Amino acid sequence: MSPHIKPQTLKGFRDYLPAAMLARERLIDTARRVYRSYGFSPIDTPALEYTEILLGKGGGETDKQMFRFEDQGGRDVAMRFDLTVPFARFAAQHLNDIGTPFKRYHVGTVWRAEKPQKGRFREFMQCDFDTIGTRSNAADIETLLVIHDLFEAIGKEFAIPDFDFRIHVNNRMVLNGLLESLGVQEKSADVLRSLDKLPKIGRDAVQAELVDAAGLTAEQAERVLNATHEVSGSGIRKNSAAPGSSGILTNSATILDALPSIVGNNETALAGIDRLRELFAACAKVGLPERRVVLDVSIARGLDYYTGTIYETFLTQLPGIGSVCSGGRYDNLAAMYTSQELPGVGASLGLDRLLAALEELGCVPPTATPADVLITQFDAASLGEYLAFARELHAAGICAEVFPEARALGKQLKYAAKKGFRVAVIAGAEELQSGRWQVKELSSGDQYSVPREELGAVIGRMVGQ
Amino acid sequence: MSPHIKPQTLKGFRDYLPAAMLARERLIDTARRVYRSYGFSPIDTPALEYTEILLGKGGGETDKQMFRFEDQGGRDVAMRFDLTVPFARFAAQHLNDIGTPFKRYHVGTVWRAEKPQKGRFREFMQCDFDTIGTRSNAADIETLLVIHDLFEAIGKEFAIPDFDFRIHVNNRMVLNGLLESLGVQEKSADVLRSLDKLPKIGRDAVQAELVDAAGLTAEQAERVLNATHEVSGSGIRKNSAAPGSSGILTNSATILDALPSIVGNNETALAGIDRLRELFAACAKVGLPERRVVLDVSIARGLDYYTGTIYETFLTQLPGIGSVCSGGRYDNLAAMYTSQELPGVGASLGLDRLLAALEELGCVPPTATPADVLITQFDAASLGEYLAFARELHAAGICAEVFPEARALGKQLKYAAKKGFRVAVIAGAEELQSGRWQVKELSSGDQYSVPREELGAVIGRMVGQ
Repeated sequence: MSPHIKPQTLKGFRDYLPAAMLARERLIDTARRVYRSYGFSPIDTPALEYTEILLGKGGGETDKQMFRFEDQGGRDVAMRFDLTVPFARFAAQHLNDIGTPFKRYHVGTVWRAEKPQKGRFREFMQCDFDTIGTRSNAADIETLLVIHDLFEAIGKEFAIPDFDFRIHVNNRMVLNGLLESLGVQEKSADVLRSLDKLPKIGRDAVQAELVDAAGLTAEQAERVLNATHEVSGSGIRKNSAAPGSSGILTNSATILDALPSIVGNNETALAGIDRLRELFAACAKVGLPERRVVLDVSIARGLDYYTGTIYETFLTQLPGIGSVCSGGRYDNLAAMYTSQELPGVGASLGLDRLLAALEELGCVPPTATPADVLITQFDAASLGEYLAFARELHAAGICAEVFPEARALGKQLKYAAKKGFRVAVIAGAEELQSGRWQVKELSSGDQYSVPREELGAVIGRMVGQ
Repeated sequence: MSPHIKPQTLKGFRDYLPAAMLARERLIDTARRVYRSYGFSPIDTPALEYTEILLGKGGGETDKQMFRFEDQGGRDVAMRFDLTVPFARFAAQHLNDIGTPFKRYHVGTVWRAEKPQKGRFREFMQCDFDTIGTRSNAADIETLLVIHDLFEAIGKEFAIPDFDFRIHVNNRMVLNGLLESLGVQEKSADVLRSLDKLPKIGRDAVQAELVDAAGLTAEQAERVLNATHEVSGSGIRKNSAAPGSSGILTNSATILDALPSIVGNNETALAGIDRLRELFAACAKVGLPERRVVLDVSIARGLDYYTGTIYETFLTQLPGIGSVCSGGRYDNLAAMYTSQELPGVGASLGLDRLLAALEELGCVPPTATPADVLITQFDAASLGEYLAFARELHAAGICAEVFPEARALGKQLKYAAKKGFRVAVIAGAEELQSGRWQVKELSSGDQYSVPREELGAVIGRMVGQ
């Protein structure tokens, strides 16, 4: 028997090795930069909470997915399964300190004991941002701009060729208003559940379900499907079931014009349509490319929680992976914890799903080091010289590593190539004496002899600093 | 009875509100920047591991402090209590991929069910860095430089007045060699445990304990205390018990000269002294201020795990909080999981302790927003203008928020002052028509009228962009 414990992670969990982690850090940094640019502040909450806080008085599906246990003090505790519930608790608890409106982002790990699948883990990271304490449509519009600028920034940061994305927006008030006008608003949860199946089971099956399960009349079901699946009144058909694929309606203005008559001029629905109009007007005003934001009356986002604008974001090159950034407006964030109403709007970036997408697009470099420069060690007695030069580069903002051992040069260069360093510096006795060090560009193999005093500037140019 | 669930965190856990979180993000960014500059790569490991992985086959004190439970699949799992054990498991598991030498940093949350005390929480963040796969003293020296540059960078980043720090180094080989030469090396764990009590119980009590508990003779105890507490042979006395306080030996060279005779010229001890000599020579070579690194023969770092150089870091202004960055060299990181020997060296930044220190020094600003500029909303119909200007500032790298509602200007300015914005922009109908917007510097209250096309540049200068 081996005397060793087998080194392994738990099922559904994984390690991040340097190349993947460097990409994850870049992605997080990009998200933080965009969130911060709009004035969202970071917060953090504990990984563990009272189970009652996370579950509310209910339970159900979420309960089964929680890592839940009794702690040493006999408390019923659980690991957070999203960042929304902890934020609701946080907002209720610290309302006096934070005031409203309050804009926060939260980058954090969450845990769900789901059945692991390809690309789905039991531990994953979310990047949420929300504005609470206001019903103003300005916050809805800003949320859209944040999503837009976030994906613009990601495309640039990862230099994704032919990168494009599309943000699908809708407003739940439109559907809610229609149900209201049909006198079936209390069936909204069932209706939403059925509509969510559209891409999977198709129009006919959904229509049948709306009648059988949700209890709508055939005519009501038809009108709901008209308003959400096809805008037949305007003659525009949406044939595609999967959002992000062909057949998307890009002529948002035409749909907006057609919708009022379809929803029977119900007040709630008209207010929702007005908010959508304002949103598209603002997009035009700030100059977003038209193709980037589309009105997609088919998106409903299953969660009963959303009450206004809703957002889903698809990568044009990878529609199959689904929405990588979703969210919406809600009426009351923290009803479980406080009587103070906290309306808000926000969205969540699916960080790990997006990382997987970037890998699929070949945009995650295999580089396993943050440093550009490897200073080889020729002679242990000269370590001080190497370290002094490394610190000179650090001061200039260049990441540079000194190889820790005076091994054969070939081995050190092999290490440099494997990790993805761009430049190697070589200085043996001769170089140290002559004051001219060797600089090797690793991609081309070209090697130069450079006076020591010019070395920093030369390397700076080589790594584009 | 209230219909609400009381919003509260678990005992020993806490939320991070924006001001504290902004400081924490700055601290993490600073640490990452320094680690990366030396070529350390980021990794991450799961929060949950098999309990067997974390505990080994032993148990003991650590076991009681673990959040441990049975998951839905009946596995015995626990939340990580440090980043070292997961790193050992990681290194053993991925050795073929990562190769050696391997340098990593890891910023991560860990959990310990300790009795909560002031400034001590059950959830806290660690920032570790390590170099494994080499015995070379170059890695020990680099570790010291990283710690040095890290604290230099923190002092600058937080603009701490009169900031200074001191890194205490020692080498366990010196004490181990002495015990060897006394023929009592097998008592090293007991000896270390006693020596660690020096600051608390004083020299006489430790001497008694070395005899009674560790089983040394009175003469052996005397020699151990000479080598670790006083270097009497050189005539230099170390009277202070608490490291970081007065009485520290700064004349490291003199001690190094005195040590060989005290440790009886034992080979292991001499090798340790040589490594210390090389370390001090490298510090001089790269120009570290002499006061920053001191040989402190009294530090032993309780953990039996360390076998070579050890490090502790004290803030000169706050010696009482203890070491804020500690570490050392070890012989074999992952013996529990692999037969491959993985010697290494590294250190851990006590992030939360340091944050508490920065707060105590008054260096954590109360600012609760990452943005400098608040664009007030005068008129909802002009929202597009405000948003377009905000995005113009974002493109110039300036964080700017548009207030989400067209509330009374006084309320918006109050919000700006409370959050800590520096500049407010005001544009009502008149300004929008004339093309001259108002800019208000919030610290002074000064207000200027600026042509719209110059607005970005003027604000850039005001916020120092």
